[in-house]
This record gives sequence, C-alpha cells and structure tokens, in this order.
Amino acid sequence: MKTILSGITPSGKLHLGNYFGAIRQHIEMQEKGDAFYFIANYHSLTSINDGKEIRENTLDIALDYLALGLDPEKCTFFAQSDVPQVTELAWILGTFCPVSLMEKGVAYKDKVAQGLSPNIGLFTYPILQAADILIYNSDLVPVGQDQKQNIEICRDLAGKLNHVYDKELLKLPEEYIVESVAVVPGIDGRKMSKSYGNTIGIFDEGKKLKKKVMSIETDSTPLDEPKDPDTCNVFALIKLFANKKKRKEIADKYRAGGYGYGHAKKELLGMITDYFAEARERRKELQKNEDYVMDVLREGSKTARERAETVMGPVREATGIIRNYNF
Amino acid sequence: MKTILSGITPSGKLHLGNYFGAIRQHIEMQEKGDAFYFIANYHSLTSINDGKEIRENTLDIALDYLALGLDPEKCTFFAQSDVPQVTELAWILGTFCPVSLMEKGVAYKDKVAQGLSPNIGLFTYPILQAADILIYNSDLVPVGQDQKQNIEICRDLAGKLNHVYDKELLKLPEEYIVESVAVVPGIDGRKMSKSYGNTIGIFDEGKKLKKKVMSIETDSTPLDEPKDPDTCNVFALIKLFANKKKRKEIADKYRAGGYGYGHAKKELLGMITDYFAEARERRKELQKNEDYVMDVLREGSKTARERAETVMGPVREATGIIRNYNF
Repeated sequence: MKTILSGITPSGKLHLGNYFGAIRQHIEMQEKGDAFYFIANYHSLTSINDGKEIRENTLDIALDYLALGLDPEKCTFFAQSDVPQVTELAWILGTFCPVSLMEKGVAYKDKVAQGLSPNIGLFTYPILQAADILIYNSDLVPVGQDQKQNIEICRDLAGKLNHVYDKELLKLPEEYIVESVAVVPGIDGRKMSKSYGNTIGIFDEGKKLKKKVMSIETDSTPLDEPKDPDTCNVFALIKLFANKKKRKEIADKYRAGGYGYGHAKKELLGMITDYFAEARERRKELQKNEDYVMDVLREGSKTARERAETVMGPVREATGIIRNYNF
Repeated sequence: MKTILSGITPSGKLHLGNYFGAIRQHIEMQEKGDAFYFIANYHSLTSINDGKEIRENTLDIALDYLALGLDPEKCTFFAQSDVPQVTELAWILGTFCPVSLMEKGVAYKDKVAQGLSPNIGLFTYPILQAADILIYNSDLVPVGQDQKQNIEICRDLAGKLNHVYDKELLKLPEEYIVESVAVVPGIDGRKMSKSYGNTIGIFDEGKKLKKKVMSIETDSTPLDEPKDPDTCNVFALIKLFANKKKRKEIADKYRAGGYGYGHAKKELLGMITDYFAEARERRKELQKNEDYVMDVLREGSKTARERAETVMGPVREATGIIRNYNF
C-alpha cells in the first residue's frame, strides 16, 4: 500500500476553497492508501508570531478535519511538532543543500521582490517540507501546481543524500498534482483566499453565512432578463454543491429570465447549509471534547514517530550520528 | 551556580593546540560551575560526509576528554544528537533570523569569496549554535575571539524571541573570551592547526611522536653558538609544559651556547611523554571499554534533555506549538 503524505498549515479558518481544493481529496484518499496527514505547526511560525493563534488554529484544523470525515482509524493524523525526527532530518538535509538552491525559491523571491528580508524559516522551509515528506517514506504527495518546485527540491535532496552515502536511505516521492475540480471564487469573484479576505468558512452558519452569501458580487442584470450562469460567481459556487440534474435545472432558470441573483443566492445558502450540516453537528460535539481530539493526535503521533524512526535509524547509521536512547 | 556551555566538533584527532587552547580550560572549568560539554556531531556534518569518520571522531573525542580528566560526576558530557530539542529550537530561532544576518557570517563569506556555494548547514550553523547555547539556559560560553560574532547572533536571536513574546523565555548568555595562554606553534612554526597538517596529537606516542618532535622547524644556528629561545618553535612548545624554574634553566642553556636544537627537542619529547603519561594510560583502559564511554554519554544526555525541556516547555507554550507526549 502506498504511503500518501500531506501537511496542513494551521494559518487560519478553513474555507470552501480549502475544502474543494484539498480537504475533500484528503478525506477520499484515506480510503486509497496509507495516509499520513499532519498539522504543519512549525511551518506556521514563519508567518505567525502569536502563540494563542497558532494553538487555536491547530485545534481548529483538527476539529475541522475530524468533523469533515477524516477517520483516525483509516489514516495517521498528528501534529508536526510531535515528531522530533523531522527537524533533525531537516538539519541533515540542509547540509546537502546549496544556498543557491534556496535562493531560487518562489516564496523567497517574492519577499525579496517586495524589498523585504525574509526570515531563515521562510528561506529554508522547502527543506523542512522535504523532511516532512521523506521522514515517513512517502510515495505520493498530493500537491497543487504551486508546490511542484518544492517536490523537485525534496527529490533532489533525497537523491543527493542517497548518492553520497551510496545507499537508498530516503525514498524519492512522486508528486501527485491535484487538479482543482473547479476554481472556487470568493465573494468578490477572485480566487477564494484568506489573503483576499473573500472567504466563506466551511463552518460558517446562521447570520454570518447568510451575510457572506448575500454579498457575493454579481452584475446588475435586472431580475426579468435572462442571465449567463457561466459568468456568475454564485453559479460557480452552486456547481460545487449541486448534482448534475440540479445544476442543469438552475442553469436553465438563469437562461430563462425571471430568476434573480437573490434567488440563486438563497439556493446556494441552502446548499451550503445542507452539505455541511452533518459535519457542523459533529464539530459541535467534538468541540465539547478537546481531550478526545488531543488523544487522536497523540495516538497518530506514535505511529508517525515509529515510522520516522525506521527512516532516521539508517540515516543516523550512514551519517555517523550516534543516538544513545530511544524515544 | 553558573551554567557553562561548550561544544567540541568531532572533526579529527585532538592536538596540542586544542589542548592548551581549550581542553585544559574546559577541564578546569568543571570545578567552577555547572558545566555542559557536548560533542557537536550535527555541526560536523557541514564538512564531513563520511559516517565512519564522524562516528570514530565522536568516540575519540569522548575518550580524549575522559582520559584528560573530564569527570562525568562534575559536569554533563553528552552528544548533541541525543538532545532532539536542539534542532527544534534551531528551527524556531530561524523564524526570527533575517537571511541578511546569516549573510554577514564569516564562515559563509569565506566560502563565497572562494567562489563556492556553501550548503545551508554552513550558512545557518550560527543558528544551531545559538540553540546549543540557549537550550541549556547557559550563562557563560567560553569561546575564542573568532567565535565572538556568533555569541552576538545568539544574544540577538534570544532577545528577539523574548521581545516578540514579551517574556524572558531564553537567557542571554555572556561570552567569555578565553585568552590563549600562549600561541601553540605547529611543527612548521605556523599556528598549530589540523588544516595546516602541522599538528602534534595529544595522544601521539613512540616513534610517531618522536618523528614529529624531531621535525619541528628551527633555524640553522650551529650547536656551539648561543641561541634565542624566544624565537624558537621548540622553546615555544617547551614553555607550555615546563614550570618557571625549568623554563629558565632551558632558556639559559639556549643563550649559553653548546646546547643544540636536538637537545631541546629531546627535552620536549620527554616533557610531552611525561605530561600526558597518565592520560595515555587512562585512554588505553577506556578504549577497552567502549560501553562505559557510551554509558557516560547516555547518562549525560538525560540531564541535558531534562534541562532542555525546562527551556523548550515555555517556548512551546509561548509560540503555540503543541507537544502531546514526553520524551
């Protein structure tokens, strides 16, 4: 069975863009392989210096995933910080990584272009990411197109280490580019993204959800006139929730005229509410039981540390790094 | 009692320059404070890619120090790799360290000046070194003049973290510049250094030691003529071993004439042999008992991990990094 690896950075509340772009696939993939999913809290330190926020985000992510159907019996779910081998491997990989390779990093170049001096965490995060992947002997890493470069770096570093020590110490992972099923627009029509402030949260509900849905930008075609569903932000979101039949039904109403954006928004509001109804209830239950959530992460981390040790043992042996005790 | 911290990189056999420049002071200081001495094996990876060599060097350093009088009852002696908190803290410190600060590093600038692209390990080693210091709440770090910049970086990073989280999470260490008692010349007269290949090993003996001492470079003043002890490499080494009386006695012989460099070298050979006689015997005993040496390092690492945890606990709390298990 192939090992599937993915990390989730606890950088804020999850939204519909996250759900349709990644979370849904994560939950599907727990059925298809030996999935390791971790909450990448060390990574979040490169941009967030607020302990309360990181702790809350970490717990929120755990609650969100468990509520949405992640099953700790089917996959290994844990926090990055519960696997100490990961920063150890990152250090070792760093000794094989030319500074020039990091200087090509997209996130780094962006910062420099803005005239900022990034921190070393941001500069070297592809190394920590490589360690995150390699430490579990991962086969497949589902990533978006924007992470392709980092998977190359990971393979590159693993290959170098294997070459220098003339041994298959680290398994070169395959990338698995997740083609977004659809672009998920935010309420302003741009790609839904936390940084644009245009998100609809997965667990938004009641007045808050209604307000967000009702504020989705549309054009000013009068109610009576026919409308083009394919250029409408509301319809783009409806498509994500509706089955084929329902989709056609609503598209027909758009084209016929006499169906306003207000109607479409109401329809979408109902869909979001229904789609996540069960998850929402489950989340409320879980939230009452923080201990259970921590237990899940603790149990997951045991499996993760054991796997990590099977990789680090031979790496320490080859590099000559002694280890005089067991975790 | 003040915590004294020093690391020893296992990068080769220890020589007289190491002994009079650092080891002797280390051994003296175990009486004066709560000393933590670690074998910096992660650091050696920035320059050595040979596992056998690093493992041997690690054990050699342990044997050398124990033979020379390091007392595990009086100090905490361990391997860097047995304290997993150190790479964890290094990652966290990295998120507070601008790339530009590392670009000022002397070792890094040297490499770049040679037209080489250094590896990330070498580039960021001052951060790992800062973590090495801060993780034990160190008060005093005895270092040579060349390491002054790195102690500044360490204080700088600790100060930043304390400032951001508005709490004294990390103790700012004081540097303690060890003024070399004397310059230790190598057999070619330049500073004794592994990189010059001009060393006399602390545990060299027999023919090997004799050959090295006899090859110390001197001028060609004939035997009969008076000689200047103060410009002689042999005398510079004799000074390190001889007491005041003996030193004067030999200097007088130099100045009187009729005393050749060969005589002086023989004198030096006897001094080295005597000075390290006990240590040499102790080392041979210890070498037969590798398990004991590993036990010492294992015991030391327990104390070190416990101390490290007292620092990392509050750091994790402040940064919001969860930790769901105990070492």
